[in-house]
Amino acid sequence: MALTIDLNCDLGEGFGVYQLGQDKEMLTLVSSCNIACGFHAGDPTTIRHTIELALENMVAIGAHPGYPDLVGFGRRAMQVSPQEVEDMVMYQVAALKGMVEAYGGTLHHVKPHGALYNTAAKESDIAHAIARAVARTAPNAILYGLTDSTLINAAEAIGLAVAHEVFADRTYQADGSLTPRTAPQAILHNETEAVEQVLMMIEQQKVQTVNGQLVSIKADTLCLHGDHPNAVSFARALRQVLAEKGVQISAP
Amino acid sequence: MALTIDLNCDLGEGFGVYQLGQDKEMLTLVSSCNIACGFHAGDPTTIRHTIELALENMVAIGAHPGYPDLVGFGRRAMQVSPQEVEDMVMYQVAALKGMVEAYGGTLHHVKPHGALYNTAAKESDIAHAIARAVARTAPNAILYGLTDSTLINAAEAIGLAVAHEVFADRTYQADGSLTPRTAPQAILHNETEAVEQVLMMIEQQKVQTVNGQLVSIKADTLCLHGDHPNAVSFARALRQVLAEKGVQISAP
Amino acid sequence: MALTIDLNCDLGEGFGVYQLGQDKEMLTLVSSCNIACGFHAGDPTTIRHTIELALENMVAIGAHPGYPDLVGFGRRAMQVSPQEVEDMVMYQVAALKGMVEAYGGTLHHVKPHGALYNTAAKESDIAHAIARAVARTAPNAILYGLTDSTLINAAEAIGLAVAHEVFADRTYQADGSLTPRTAPQAILHNETEAVEQVLMMIEQQKVQTVNGQLVSIKADTLCLHGDHPNAVSFARALRQVLAEKGVQISAP
Amino acid sequence: MALTIDLNCDLGEGFGVYQLGQDKEMLTLVSSCNIACGFHAGDPTTIRHTIELALENMVAIGAHPGYPDLVGFGRRAMQVSPQEVEDMVMYQVAALKGMVEAYGGTLHHVKPHGALYNTAAKESDIAHAIARAVARTAPNAILYGLTDSTLINAAEAIGLAVAHEVFADRTYQADGSLTPRTAPQAILHNETEAVEQVLMMIEQQKVQTVNGQLVSIKADTLCLHGDHPNAVSFARALRQVLAEKGVQISAP
Repeated sequence: MALTIDLNCDLGEGFGVYQLGQDKEMLTLVSSCNIACGFHAGDPTTIRHTIELALENMVAIGAHPGYPDLVGFGRRAMQVSPQEVEDMVMYQVAALKGMVEAYGGTLHHVKPHGALYNTAAKESDIAHAIARAVARTAPNAILYGLTDSTLINAAEAIGLAVAHEVFADRTYQADGSLTPRTAPQAILHNETEAVEQVLMMIEQQKVQTVNGQLVSIKADTLCLHGDHPNAVSFARALRQVLAEKGVQISAP
Repeated sequence: MALTIDLNCDLGEGFGVYQLGQDKEMLTLVSSCNIACGFHAGDPTTIRHTIELALENMVAIGAHPGYPDLVGFGRRAMQVSPQEVEDMVMYQVAALKGMVEAYGGTLHHVKPHGALYNTAAKESDIAHAIARAVARTAPNAILYGLTDSTLINAAEAIGLAVAHEVFADRTYQADGSLTPRTAPQAILHNETEAVEQVLMMIEQQKVQTVNGQLVSIKADTLCLHGDHPNAVSFARALRQVLAEKGVQISAP
Repeated sequence: MALTIDLNCDLGEGFGVYQLGQDKEMLTLVSSCNIACGFHAGDPTTIRHTIELALENMVAIGAHPGYPDLVGFGRRAMQVSPQEVEDMVMYQVAALKGMVEAYGGTLHHVKPHGALYNTAAKESDIAHAIARAVARTAPNAILYGLTDSTLINAAEAIGLAVAHEVFADRTYQADGSLTPRTAPQAILHNETEAVEQVLMMIEQQKVQTVNGQLVSIKADTLCLHGDHPNAVSFARALRQVLAEKGVQISAP
Repeated sequence: MALTIDLNCDLGEGFGVYQLGQDKEMLTLVSSCNIACGFHAGDPTTIRHTIELALENMVAIGAHPGYPDLVGFGRRAMQVSPQEVEDMVMYQVAALKGMVEAYGGTLHHVKPHGALYNTAAKESDIAHAIARAVARTAPNAILYGLTDSTLINAAEAIGLAVAHEVFADRTYQADGSLTPRTAPQAILHNETEAVEQVLMMIEQQKVQTVNGQLVSIKADTLCLHGDHPNAVSFARALRQVLAEKGVQISAP
């Protein structure tokens, strides 16, 4: 059986007149997308437009809920209670799911955004709050989370399907976690190395850590950043290598 | 067959720490409620809490979408395009519908709020935009609109069920429209007169205009304002009179 | 004495991670700028950064207050009371003035944005509300308004200095007003014609209307749009022609 | 020389149609007030109205800046950079100062709100960011901060006047810090004990800790919560006791 990977990308992250990312191009290159729901980015018109684009491109659609922090783009941690997280994720997932269905689509997955994603990867009460919110509003959706993280565990505990997410351009530590962005070696700037890291994750389910060790890693879905200047060219290069290696690209 | 009227009330119109209205008391007195969706009022936690209260009281739940104008409470007309209206109503209805269903309920109706309600009662393109949004996201929901208004016509044209809404404390003009709030006789301050107006609407399907004429009026649902100091006492008085007259209170 | 014109441009109209316009380039080409104050665009960090840039370029700084409508970029008319307009303009002007002074600058002018600008050009109560707000918070600032408009009259009536604003790329009607954007001939797409229109306004204080008549027009300041793709090249071309004609560029 | 204390209260913490607190009554009982600036609460109309009320009552006016978190009322910690804090405090202080001066008043002080206050009491980089913002926009204003806190130190280091703030109804620990609200003994529910604690702070500059020790404390200003049901009656009782003891009430 052929190896398979999902390529996902955050989309619909503009707001009003503001544009962000290269949504049209990225939609031709990914198998699933995560659409901002109006809290960290996105507004009803942007959401509807992005849903229409994703459906045209037959890309699996996910909700991308975040903290209510438009000016900070949802990247700033907020001391929000688990109940508030559960409520805000329910609201955002419900809004996106209803709009996707209004256009004949199905909500395929949910992936938290930014600081909410990072907090959920470590803090159990926030992870469980997100899992409960998804289980209540979209029980058939797959929860995308950082590979082997607390969020993945919480989702499995409540009976949700999950997808372990990995990154092409981030380095990993001995325990399988991401090197913090504040550390010097956090980012793989070399595209060839990034492609090689992805291939090893898919073919061997391993990653080489910053210390040179090989550790196991689960890789169901790979995040492609859509707002980098070279996002499109990297995605094209990666797809070509994956095709050569016989790796299929499809949403879980 | 007994005469029937629906009593509806706007609920969940607080925001964060801010409280508004007497939701708990009103829920024991109405047959349907319209829950703010986060644009003119309401936030995910307030919405979830209000849904739980409404379900406990077995009151039919509607979405109450408004303009994105929190500081103006959705009462200020905005020059928004029909497409933007359609998108913002889809978003709000979808969010509320998904949360109601997450708690085991069903979205019963949609009633636009404030300036959006007033604009939709007169302007055809806005009325049709709202009707399209509801048809897309909640085709089985009833659209509540000002009795015999452009919004009602637009809803019927697209095949939605409708409820003609009347007011106990507002006066009517010769063409069946509401006397503008800026006019001196706009409000019926006398509770007895308000009760009599309601009875005549239900029993005779007529209303006495400010000029003293009797004109026909359709009355499927009556709006009770929940944020007036005497809202609860008026609702109790009205229910008692309706009971004496054998009028049943139930959601359409 | 040499002819003089002010070239102004809206700046600081990004929000959080969102960028808009070509602020750095435009600041080398204009004599005054209008900085968004956080209601239709702009946030504290963007404002501070834009003030620093403007001071480095020795460009006169104005406040650019708008309606509280981030998602609509302040371009949608809102039915806001004169008192609310007065309050929101006071708040925005005060915030910007205080921050400019914090960095050693002076608030030079105030120019309303978008729908607020357009409403103030026609509606007397809104025009007077803005004039009162500026007189209270920045009495020495010049009020920029559409040439010969109700806003200019209101500003003069309260004793404020004014600047009559004209546009290079908009056509004019027989009464000296702008052709509405919805009309087919609203925009001068030809750059050469736009430059000629500006020259005639400055040198002859006249403009040719869409009907071919020549009518009088006051031109103290010319608005250059910073968010058009060709904004920078047009500004450069215009500056060269103005230099050749001996027209000085400086803030009023 | 008579002993003196300032009584301060947070005011203007409504938003749009939403009311909070008992501003009119509290203004007759305090010597200084802290007006919300629009980020955690407050809007331009509420701010202007509150300024007018404070001026009528000759109460010293301060700015009360908070995190941009309306739905959380500024009570949730946010991971905001020092530069962002500096910018947002400049913006809020500038807006309030300009509006106070527009009505003939003077900005007397600045007191951060909620989570921003608490973070600034402990974290040096946030404390210095606030102090810089105040020094830039209102160098003559007094910075109110938790007694003996990191914020007070940062303000003094930059040359600002300070006021050490204490609380009537909160208990203190051996190191002079407040008992966290999550601890069982955090709140003094007994009004008589609260009055006694205030008197000891003023007369002896000491407070009895939860462990029974007496520790030194600086008390320049006492915070009275305006949104408690018994806030007005407690303030009246306290003022009577202070009058009997000959303690003068006035802003620093």
